[in-house]
Amino acid sequence: MKNTKLRLETCLSPALYPKHAHDENIVVVVDILRATSSICTALHNGVKRIIPVATVEEARTKKEEGFIVASERDGYVLDFADFGNSPFNFTAERVKDREIVYSTTNGTRCIHMASHSRAVVIGSFLNLTALTDWLLQQDAPVLIFCASWKDRFSLEDTVFAGALAEKLLESGKYETICDAVTASLDLWSLAKNDLNGYIQKAAQKGRLAAKGLDDCIEFCHQPDFTKVVPQFSGGDLIPVS
Amino acid sequence: MKNTKLRLETCLSPALYPKHAHDENIVVVVDILRATSSICTALHNGVKRIIPVATVEEARTKKEEGFIVASERDGYVLDFADFGNSPFNFTAERVKDREIVYSTTNGTRCIHMASHSRAVVIGSFLNLTALTDWLLQQDAPVLIFCASWKDRFSLEDTVFAGALAEKLLESGKYETICDAVTASLDLWSLAKNDLNGYIQKAAQKGRLAAKGLDDCIEFCHQPDFTKVVPQFSGGDLIPVS
Repeated sequence: MKNTKLRLETCLSPALYPKHAHDENIVVVVDILRATSSICTALHNGVKRIIPVATVEEARTKKEEGFIVASERDGYVLDFADFGNSPFNFTAERVKDREIVYSTTNGTRCIHMASHSRAVVIGSFLNLTALTDWLLQQDAPVLIFCASWKDRFSLEDTVFAGALAEKLLESGKYETICDAVTASLDLWSLAKNDLNGYIQKAAQKGRLAAKGLDDCIEFCHQPDFTKVVPQFSGGDLIPVS
Repeated sequence: MKNTKLRLETCLSPALYPKHAHDENIVVVVDILRATSSICTALHNGVKRIIPVATVEEARTKKEEGFIVASERDGYVLDFADFGNSPFNFTAERVKDREIVYSTTNGTRCIHMASHSRAVVIGSFLNLTALTDWLLQQDAPVLIFCASWKDRFSLEDTVFAGALAEKLLESGKYETICDAVTASLDLWSLAKNDLNGYIQKAAQKGRLAAKGLDDCIEFCHQPDFTKVVPQFSGGDLIPVS
């Protein structure tokens, strides 16, 4: 019987990732508004695979090769893309059994940054319980990696990190000496009883509202919409097997 | 009469500083455990000036030139230094009217990083009200710059950032769209009624305790021990005039 617990850490920004990177980590990439919520929705609705690409140039090349492309920067759909980054775009009618190339301002970059790790999976409120259950079946340290916004601290990603950390620590399998985990737990404790009310003060809410893109915020904070756990595997995002 | 408010932001780590740097900022450097608490204590006890140096090599050179040197790395006093980084070292008997060269793991580096700014001042619970009053007399955006620990998010620095942000926002002169400010305010709201109890869970508390250096934690969270506001001016830390 093991008497040591597994390490749990939270990284609050891609700029801090080098301080948290360990090859043995399972990394949970989090970009609640909206990349990781959209990826969970897309796989829930039957997308065969998502190919995350980090740059606009890669997305354009893939479009020329015939792929469906979901891509935006700063909330604006790129001119060559089929649609943007709202989870409402990824309807079953549109995406079932299709392959989609996906590139966003923050989220897809983190997936590639963490690709050296033991595993990279996608977290959102939409798959919180399924993700927790899958993580608890593994036997590895976990890093919750907040995509944030242009490297700045992001409230909604951190609150989600607290929700996930609470579940993992309650299992008794994990321990932490990471202040970012501690802070995320406290922020989640303030947010959990009225999550949609709490998240109204997030800066990203204002940025999305200014572009008319805030219609999905309530949906993105809905726990357990799906049982799908997307994993980055062989260059693609597919459900964990 | 102006109808625009001044920008207030919080930077949670030196690794995030490039996202917050503006030449017109007044930057408040914060390293509660223990650099900025010690700097406030030293100037309160009559140090003539503190010369913050970023590297061990600079500190050693200054020692050879005859200066008193307070310097440590990771909580260990450097072999050539006169003493380390505890505020209790900077007694009036030892430091009054003296010039002290000072170098620490995190804090002094931030002072130099921010030196392009309109002003760089030193913040701690020890000078919270005096610092607030001085900032409110200026007419400039404020960046609260948490020194953190080796670029990682630090709970005690962020809680202080919330305490200062609360006072500045209550004045009505400032506004913010920075999620790091929002989170710091919420953490401060949880901590303020029992600050010493709350801060026990900070990772730096454990790191200091492991080296027997945690005797100063309660002192470092004592509001308004002094009216001194240290400012970085001409390469030295001296009280604001």
